[in-house]
Formats: sequence, C-alpha cells, structure tokens
Amino acid sequence: MTKPPERLLQQMDFIIEADKLKNIFRQSFISDKSRRENDAEHSWHLALMVIVLSEHANNENLDLLKILKMVIIHDIVEIDAGDTYIYDEAAKKSQADREAKAADRLFNILPADQATSFRTTWDEFEEGLTPESKFARSLDRLHPMLLNYLAEGKSWEEHNINEGDIRRINGKIADGSEDLWTYTEHLIEKSIQSGILNASE
Amino acid sequence: MTKPPERLLQQMDFIIEADKLKNIFRQSFISDKSRRENDAEHSWHLALMVIVLSEHANNENLDLLKILKMVIIHDIVEIDAGDTYIYDEAAKKSQADREAKAADRLFNILPADQATSFRTTWDEFEEGLTPESKFARSLDRLHPMLLNYLAEGKSWEEHNINEGDIRRINGKIADGSEDLWTYTEHLIEKSIQSGILNASE
Repeated sequence: MTKPPERLLQQMDFIIEADKLKNIFRQSFISDKSRRENDAEHSWHLALMVIVLSEHANNENLDLLKILKMVIIHDIVEIDAGDTYIYDEAAKKSQADREAKAADRLFNILPADQATSFRTTWDEFEEGLTPESKFARSLDRLHPMLLNYLAEGKSWEEHNINEGDIRRINGKIADGSEDLWTYTEHLIEKSIQSGILNASE
Repeated sequence: MTKPPERLLQQMDFIIEADKLKNIFRQSFISDKSRRENDAEHSWHLALMVIVLSEHANNENLDLLKILKMVIIHDIVEIDAGDTYIYDEAAKKSQADREAKAADRLFNILPADQATSFRTTWDEFEEGLTPESKFARSLDRLHPMLLNYLAEGKSWEEHNINEGDIRRINGKIADGSEDLWTYTEHLIEKSIQSGILNASE
C-alpha cells in the first residue's frame, strides 16, 4: 500500500481536525439572517478583508502574509474552547485559560517546528501588541459589527446590546485602523437611525 | 453624519457582496456528514492547507502570499455562476463563460485598481500555468477528495463515482505536488479497502 511520509500524515491529521471549526457557531448571523455564522466562514471573510482593506491600517508596510496567517488560524482554538461572545463578561474571565489549553492540544497535532510557529503566530494575535496583530484584531471586531448591521440587529436584539456596549467593545478598532473606526461609527449612526440599535441615554 | 471616504465604501460593498459565498453549497459533505460544505468554508480550509503544506509543492520558493490570495478569492465567481460539480461534464462546458461573466460583475464592485488586481490573480489561478497556481489547484482537488474520504464516500455514492473517475480527475494533483498525489493515492487505496469506493474493473 502507498505510504506517505510520517510528517505529511501528521500535517494532514491537523487539517482533518481543523474541519471541526465548521461546526463552531458564533452569535452573529450571516447577512441574509437565515442562520448563524460559523468560525470557518468568519475566518475566510476576515482573510478577504485583509486583502481588500490593508491600505487602511494605521501602520504602513505591514507583513500581509503574517496577518493572513493570523486570521486563518486565530479561531482554531475554539474547536476545544468554544466561541466566547464578546459581550459575555462571565465567559470572558475563563476564556484565556480555556483557549491556552486548546492551543496546547490542537497546534501540537502538527510536527514540532510547525506547532511552535503556529503557537507564536496565535500568541502574537492574542497579545495584540504588534502592528500586524492590531490590524487583524480591528478586522476581527469590525466583522461581527458589519454582519449585525446587515442582519438588522438580530443578534443585538437577542442579547440586549445598545450603542454604549458597542462603542465600549469596538472602540479598539481605532488602534489598528482609524479609517475602519470611522466606518464603524458610520454603521453605528445608520443602525440607530434605522431603529435596529438603541442609542445610549 | 460620519461619512467614510468613497473608496472605502466601495471596498466594503465588495466585502458585503462576498458574504453570499456562505450560501453557495458544494457536493462534498463536511467530515461529520451532517451537511454539505459551502464555498466560504472550503476557501478557508484551502488557505489553512496552503500554510501547512506549502513545503510539499513541486517548486521551491513559491510566493505564499500570492497563493493565499488565489485560494481566498478563487470561488467568489460562484456567487453568480454557482458551484460546478467537477464530475458534471455537461455543466463544465458552460462553466468558463458563466464564471467569466461573474468575474466581470463581482470584481468590478471594487475600486478599479483592485478590480484589475483581483481579476489578474483569479485568471492566473484559472489558467494554472504558474507554479503558484499549480499548487493552489492541487489543493483545490485534494480538499474535496479528503472530505469525501472522511465522509465515507457519501458524495461518491450519490453520484456513482468510482476509482477510475477519481484517478482521471485528480491525477493533476501531481502537477502541483508529487507528495500530495502520493497522499491521494493512499486515500484512494484506503477507500477501496474499506468499501466506500468501487475499484475500477
């Protein structure tokens, strides 16, 4: 029987395990409101945003390849840790621990050199200190905001989210991109105007 | 009211239109067989495969950023043209025309410079002549093969696909990666052995 090299089999085991990300569902709905979005789709949409929107990053000369790697792998830990809703303060307390354990198990399915490289990339994204991770994190916040706007606030209504909550959580978009924060404010204003988001008192 | 620049609004229109890729379903099932996979998930999984498997490309020193751009945008035309099943010879005859029209409409939602750049990248992928597009196309063939194997041949059975069909369509994987063709042969042999794929006479 044909026998591929052990290293390739190990890499394919990781690719196979990653298929489970398609069953991790988020709070946001896709734009036609027919169902919630899953993490694999979200990660793809972020990657597309990186390619289209990178000129709007606050920092110039970003390493686009690194940003793409970040957004493609950033949610893989949720296969074990589950999706943590960004407005759920209780779940967010245990999030870092749950996700670090998940990263230990999942990235170590890969050969050791790649496990280290994936973990380094994921840690950089999580820490959010470099220009690349700041921009990636801005997109990761803008994306659900955009979907919630397109789905006419369906998820905001379910969770009783108002303008103040959104400004508090999404203000950090400006750390990676002032332009995208301007766009976010535009979405907030349009959402209030059309009655799908409650203005703060 | 806050007004983002026109160029950014145009870019976001494209990002919003692209959300429809999450509703374009393929013939392959996700690995737990619970439902068919959509194009957005497929594109994400390919991007992950690029990052993990690029060392197996026949050519060295590939431009990884270009390959990632290719796989992230390669199926966007299916928003208008629909998914064409790789074993459907009738549908494949009209595929190029349908997809070229879709590319004309969809990429032109972007600002002109980006529309040109996206079209160039997509054309390169479609032509499959460069080392980058050959490797991207190998992954695009291996991926449904892998899912069909994991889903115990559910989609092969539906369409009455046998070993000969698979070897005829997937042999081109070797053009981008001899290693991945070895892995594909391993999957074919395991599929026949476990009774989920009929051997050719």
